[in-house]
Amino acid sequence: MKLYESAATPSCRRVSIFLKLIDADANAEIEREQIDLRSGDNLSEKFQQMSASGLVPVLEIDADTYLSESVAICRYLDGHFANNKGLFGRDLLEQAQVEMWHRIVELQGLFNAFQSFRHSTGFYADRENCVPEWGSEAKLRTEKFLDKLEARLAHSGFVACDHLTIADIAAFVLINVVKMALKIEIEDQYTHIQVWHNKLGAMPEFQ
Amino acid sequence: MKLYESAATPSCRRVSIFLKLIDADANAEIEREQIDLRSGDNLSEKFQQMSASGLVPVLEIDADTYLSESVAICRYLDGHFANNKGLFGRDLLEQAQVEMWHRIVELQGLFNAFQSFRHSTGFYADRENCVPEWGSEAKLRTEKFLDKLEARLAHSGFVACDHLTIADIAAFVLINVVKMALKIEIEDQYTHIQVWHNKLGAMPEFQ
Repeated sequence: MKLYESAATPSCRRVSIFLKLIDADANAEIEREQIDLRSGDNLSEKFQQMSASGLVPVLEIDADTYLSESVAICRYLDGHFANNKGLFGRDLLEQAQVEMWHRIVELQGLFNAFQSFRHSTGFYADRENCVPEWGSEAKLRTEKFLDKLEARLAHSGFVACDHLTIADIAAFVLINVVKMALKIEIEDQYTHIQVWHNKLGAMPEFQ
Repeated sequence: MKLYESAATPSCRRVSIFLKLIDADANAEIEREQIDLRSGDNLSEKFQQMSASGLVPVLEIDADTYLSESVAICRYLDGHFANNKGLFGRDLLEQAQVEMWHRIVELQGLFNAFQSFRHSTGFYADRENCVPEWGSEAKLRTEKFLDKLEARLAHSGFVACDHLTIADIAAFVLINVVKMALKIEIEDQYTHIQVWHNKLGAMPEFQ
């Protein structure tokens, strides 16, 4: 297997953290190839034929089989490298709760944060039409989601259930985007996010 | 179990079709309660406590356990009512391919269609800040996704693999939103979408 990635992007970070968490050996076993987004490597015909979503990361399973979309790749890796981490949940109810919280983090948090970054900074203005007013609105919606995440973490040590799951990975990556790309400070109004983020950040897999 | 829904909304339609597909008896067994979005039933404190996402639909499993997010509800129902439909995929590779295509349909198609509808029509202007220019851009992105879906269905009878899956349900609901809410005609440039949509539309579960 081979992973095509742009290691610094949030989607690739999610796969990378997931892989280290399920199995350090699996992480070492998979070949990696860096795709340079700024020079448009991802726009080449070869890459677009591998990636049904058109985006990084892409997992090459064999010469005819490719997966894109970070969560699809994580689901495949989780089944392929048998493990007991339960990152997608350990029983049916947990699996559904992980799906629920993961989607809430993505659709209400990560998605708005990405929209804000792309539309406010015009980082990809050479390849997409940007609407700065929507970028500002999406930033407000990201902040509103942080209030929801703070409330959740005030009475749960992890995002989806009583142990670490893929929903925590998504939320951890979100907080990094929020701090570094959107320049939103995670200060005293977000005490529980701080404690949880520091706890994860101290784990080697998250570094 | 009890399902709180607003039957006509796309998210509730997805759960409703899924439930009929996995098991007609299960469909009959689950109690339903309609939530009136226009009068703000979903904004009540009681509803917000049940729904972690804040949205419909919500599945009440017992007095203390609620699930929101349509896909999380479908995943729970799929496990609870054992069936051989494989709507989330039959083996590991299919499961990952379904996840991939389902996400492409949601993130590149459904999501943009919803954004276009909400920001262009101001349907929820009493409860959210709308950016009409973003609504127009999101409509263009939805149309771009239709080209991708057409290309996919030109060489696959179903969206994700060689049989019906949850990705087809999402894409079917998307096409209805596109036609009815965005007033985009699905005409001769989308022959394969037409054939596939008619095939699904003829099934009793999709009516």
